[in-house]
Amino acid sequence: MKIIGEKINGTRQRVAQAIAGRDADYIQKLAQDQAEAGADWLDVNAGTKQSNEPKDLIWLVETVQSVVDIPLCLDSPNPAALTEAIQIVERTPMINSISGEPWRLDGILPLVAKHRCPVIALAMDDGGIPETCAGRIDAVHKVMQASRSCGVPDEDVYIDPLVMTLATDTESANITLETMRLIHAQYPDTHMSMGLSNISFGMPARANINRVFLILAVAAGLDSAIVDPMDRELKAALLTTQMLLGRDRYCLNYTRAYRAGLFNRKEC
Amino acid sequence: MKIIGEKINGTRQRVAQAIAGRDADYIQKLAQDQAEAGADWLDVNAGTKQSNEPKDLIWLVETVQSVVDIPLCLDSPNPAALTEAIQIVERTPMINSISGEPWRLDGILPLVAKHRCPVIALAMDDGGIPETCAGRIDAVHKVMQASRSCGVPDEDVYIDPLVMTLATDTESANITLETMRLIHAQYPDTHMSMGLSNISFGMPARANINRVFLILAVAAGLDSAIVDPMDRELKAALLTTQMLLGRDRYCLNYTRAYRAGLFNRKEC
Repeated sequence: MKIIGEKINGTRQRVAQAIAGRDADYIQKLAQDQAEAGADWLDVNAGTKQSNEPKDLIWLVETVQSVVDIPLCLDSPNPAALTEAIQIVERTPMINSISGEPWRLDGILPLVAKHRCPVIALAMDDGGIPETCAGRIDAVHKVMQASRSCGVPDEDVYIDPLVMTLATDTESANITLETMRLIHAQYPDTHMSMGLSNISFGMPARANINRVFLILAVAAGLDSAIVDPMDRELKAALLTTQMLLGRDRYCLNYTRAYRAGLFNRKEC
Repeated sequence: MKIIGEKINGTRQRVAQAIAGRDADYIQKLAQDQAEAGADWLDVNAGTKQSNEPKDLIWLVETVQSVVDIPLCLDSPNPAALTEAIQIVERTPMINSISGEPWRLDGILPLVAKHRCPVIALAMDDGGIPETCAGRIDAVHKVMQASRSCGVPDEDVYIDPLVMTLATDTESANITLETMRLIHAQYPDTHMSMGLSNISFGMPARANINRVFLILAVAAGLDSAIVDPMDRELKAALLTTQMLLGRDRYCLNYTRAYRAGLFNRKEC
């Protein structure tokens, strides 16, 4: 299970402020904390001001990679920003993201192929996020056809089955989980990634919902997620799930985490 | 999801002591607490002293049903004790349990058929608990053949796929979950029940392991479990799982539980 650290995201107000004010200390602390907590990639998202994005993203990349050694996940739908940022990254980055939308495929896939980057592919197309499994799988077919024709190996593609909130449709989680099972059956060499938190948008006790959803998603084939690596409860749930699913030889990761104090609450 | 309250169990030292000393207050408190916490049945197990069992079980049944209105789950492998106890129960009980062992089938199934009781059927036979899914399914076939030939409807059978600890085999949970999927496919009208806690025997942070295993088991088809109904963390996990799986219309049970303070910890 690979973790993409979510915290350096310019759509969050405090991070946007740090980017606008070139507050390197704040960003670097977020980077170091996530790296120490075991993130495999660090997402870097410069926010939604498209005109500033290339230079904001470059500043973010330089700021982050001057203090941590792990690869970045360049988070932008903007081919121009990605093209500039990819020139200066020190380690092969992940790209976040493409989708079945032709402008993203045309603008970003050549970069992915040229640099042999792993890439997140959203199960959506120009029509937005399909409400049904069938619609999402159709979008995945479009992306996979395009990525294969560009020579991108399936194992470099991290498909995001997408998730809508339960607050408006109690079938939301089932649709995502079923989409994952279909992806796993049809594209067994791809990976799957997801941002969890949409599932609980507008609901109470969100972290609790996100955590249980993560457990169900891992059982359905999720092998990567965009999450807060410092969330101890989430990490504990993840390690426990991996162990229960027979993916923790001799239960070593679990017992090590226990000894390191991850499960230190009374009710564990 | 139906909950069988586990706490009145004579294999627990404090309960054995209460049974031996006819401490009705202690037993009745356990009964009332579990009933208030929402148990659907209360397991009553008089312990392992076979010579005393019929009269101990009868005392337990009388003691419990004088203070609570919910049905009991008569927990004994002993046909003699069950035959006596079933005469005095006020509400149709569940029987816990039969298995593929001929002496249990011959001694207990006629009682189940006569009283039209729901019954827990263990996925094992005279050879003990089979290590493989195939072995457990073979045992289930034996039980189902016998129960059907006695006229017990499939929907009265609660199959327990059984679980061994992860400490000795990291495939333990996978074997149980896969057995559940096979049972669900082959006997779709039966229910499935389980005691969770064996999964974590000898491991650290047991409640945490049990909770994540419950989530995975519910996704694999578990619709009943023998657990502590007063375990708030377990209850929260269960309500959240049911909601995520689309089994909580308008998320009403979840939001009600939230308003009642079930998810009151900061990290939720």
